Amino acid sequence: MTLRKILVAQGGGPTAVINQSLVGLALAARQQTPPIQVLGARFGVRGIIEEDLVDLSKESQDDLERVALTPSSALGSTRDKPDLAYCQNIFKVLQAHQIDSFFYIGGNDSSDTVRIVRQEAQASNYPLRCIHIPKTIDNDLVGNDHTPGFASAARFVAQAFGGASLDNAALPGVYLGVVMGRHAGFLTAAAALAQNHPDDGPHLIYLPERTFDMAQFLADVQAVYARLGRCVVAVSEGIHDGSGMAIASQLAKEVERDAHGNVQLSGNGALADVLSEAIKSQLKIKRVRADTFGYLQRSFLGCVSDVDQREARMAGEKALQFALTGAVEGSVAIRRTGDYAVDYALLPIEEVAGKTRVMDDVFINEQGNHVTPAFVSYLRPLLGANLAQAHRLALHRIEKASDA
Amino acid sequence: MTLRKILVAQGGGPTAVINQSLVGLALAARQQTPPIQVLGARFGVRGIIEEDLVDLSKESQDDLERVALTPSSALGSTRDKPDLAYCQNIFKVLQAHQIDSFFYIGGNDSSDTVRIVRQEAQASNYPLRCIHIPKTIDNDLVGNDHTPGFASAARFVAQAFGGASLDNAALPGVYLGVVMGRHAGFLTAAAALAQNHPDDGPHLIYLPERTFDMAQFLADVQAVYARLGRCVVAVSEGIHDGSGMAIASQLAKEVERDAHGNVQLSGNGALADVLSEAIKSQLKIKRVRADTFGYLQRSFLGCVSDVDQREARMAGEKALQFALTGAVEGSVAIRRTGDYAVDYALLPIEEVAGKTRVMDDVFINEQGNHVTPAFVSYLRPLLGANLAQAHRLALHRIEKASDA
Repeated sequence: MTLRKILVAQGGGPTAVINQSLVGLALAARQQTPPIQVLGARFGVRGIIEEDLVDLSKESQDDLERVALTPSSALGSTRDKPDLAYCQNIFKVLQAHQIDSFFYIGGNDSSDTVRIVRQEAQASNYPLRCIHIPKTIDNDLVGNDHTPGFASAARFVAQAFGGASLDNAALPGVYLGVVMGRHAGFLTAAAALAQNHPDDGPHLIYLPERTFDMAQFLADVQAVYARLGRCVVAVSEGIHDGSGMAIASQLAKEVERDAHGNVQLSGNGALADVLSEAIKSQLKIKRVRADTFGYLQRSFLGCVSDVDQREARMAGEKALQFALTGAVEGSVAIRRTGDYAVDYALLPIEEVAGKTRVMDDVFINEQGNHVTPAFVSYLRPLLGANLAQAHRLALHRIEKASDA
Repeated sequence: MTLRKILVAQGGGPTAVINQSLVGLALAARQQTPPIQVLGARFGVRGIIEEDLVDLSKESQDDLERVALTPSSALGSTRDKPDLAYCQNIFKVLQAHQIDSFFYIGGNDSSDTVRIVRQEAQASNYPLRCIHIPKTIDNDLVGNDHTPGFASAARFVAQAFGGASLDNAALPGVYLGVVMGRHAGFLTAAAALAQNHPDDGPHLIYLPERTFDMAQFLADVQAVYARLGRCVVAVSEGIHDGSGMAIASQLAKEVERDAHGNVQLSGNGALADVLSEAIKSQLKIKRVRADTFGYLQRSFLGCVSDVDQREARMAGEKALQFALTGAVEGSVAIRRTGDYAVDYALLPIEEVAGKTRVMDDVFINEQGNHVTPAFVSYLRPLLGANLAQAHRLALHRIEKASDA
């Protein structure tokens, strides 16, 4: 199958390695004989309908390699969800530029966009290859062992809780960290990787896979605090009550939704503040501190997993290879084949599009307030090399000498 | 002068390198002939009065070297401010253990503790050497070019804004990051080091050295947003109105103070949320996101400046050397002697104790909403090696081809 001119865009929330996939695709296209021209759309599919396009074939190799190491989406992103009219506009532009293949790097909303664009292309008899390249810090794409972007964000969360637990040990109290994750708790669960010693934090982890019960939460915190004199808690922004309503959105004065109908949970500290207020007032613990990790966890400069970098790069390269060997549609997926080894498959787009994977039960403890060793084994190889390690003193006690 | 048995403690907020000073002191003491015994007090001066002491001379060299690389205070910390009775208890314990030198690693509150303990020792005719070893992410100790702990926290802030600016460029809107700093804006100002290109964030920086005016703030944000279609803002938690009252504490339902009378500003997201609400409601900008960096900035694992590590280690070593060469009291200070070189002085404790340094006027721009190039030059050499760099595509535009 011959590809002449392809177009790539980046959708949804940026990650630390989404540019690796972009560059993997662009360099693999450059490598072909003759080279395949690669156009990029600025700000996701919006850049297609607005014809805001750039020629990635003209980028220098050095720029591309440096951009691959830069977090966030170098082409810009969008949260637009194309409807029929939007897709017809996409076709007009792609046709006018004689694009034969559309690659969209994104999460489950973006994969759904790919599915719709492919459907519209078929309905219009337009021969457009449509390939979705996975990306999401939430790790919530079905059919994938894990997704590019997750491991680097998980590394940030683990390193953040590692430090926060040390800080909390030095100045004891209760520390809460609120982590991104609307429906899937993978990223919050990554906090568990901060635990080396049994008394290291996080001591409690609350995930959107389980119903959040305020009374049980307070009882859990009190039990840890009574035992250790301190308590470190990881909380997903997506925790919800029995009716499925997010605790965070119950608190928001005005609920903000994106084009996909998702309620905006990040970008404010309301959930952290309410939980911390409940601990102060009901448990009478004075020193309670709460942080909302917010946007730091997905684009902090210099916190990246080399495993994640490599896999994101390969996901971009593989997308082109699948198209070159005859695929006309699909979603690139990462599958674990060893400890630790992966391969890349192309799944039918319908199997991935718009679906949400959540944590398996085997990853969550019985009480629903922490993870299992199986989750730690699952995540550890993804975090990459040179993870900073905490260390403690042996602390040889001195006998009391005074009568003070 | 002969030292036989010294005691060290760590006070105030932890930093990424406070253990370097501890280990620098402990290893320098071990190196003497005969070795000086080093006791450590758990949880700052509280560990002295509670006689919660450990023998650091028994720690393995390897443990000490690994702990030096670990953020937060390995001995534990406290925010206690000793009064006369408290100090008399300190003496009882130090005397019972035949301690001849007391080293306290901490910020300006801790240096004031050192001053009081020394005064009480003199009043009691107890021959106790009292040396303060500097530490504070706030960089607010007088007599110092900068303080151990600041550079690593500044590195975190710069890398956080570097990533946040890229994220904001991909999904445009307004992004606010609230940074620690009660009276001194150094750490917030460090955000400026994220700017490589002129349109990189942070576009605006608000410091506690200037009066915060909400109307001017909103006008500033609107001007940047009108120009770039986006805006990244760094805000110090310590910003205050004309009366000197912190904006954050005006918002808090209940003001929490520590033993030094400091209002608790961190550990909640109220300031970020109020500023972001004002932008949404008054400027009608829809996408506004606000993060409070909180505790991540002072103890995140794996974000540390090698310059900071080295200087913190030297500050601990130098403290012992000053005592060995006859000093009976003082505060170790870092002075800049070249570009880039430093030396270490011992200042009279009264010159440092309880005083707060703020940013020089030459470091703040005329409008009071950003820093000057002088500040960037001041900070750059402190951030250390291997700082992650952002890079962008050249973005060669494609001519419009459709009539879409």
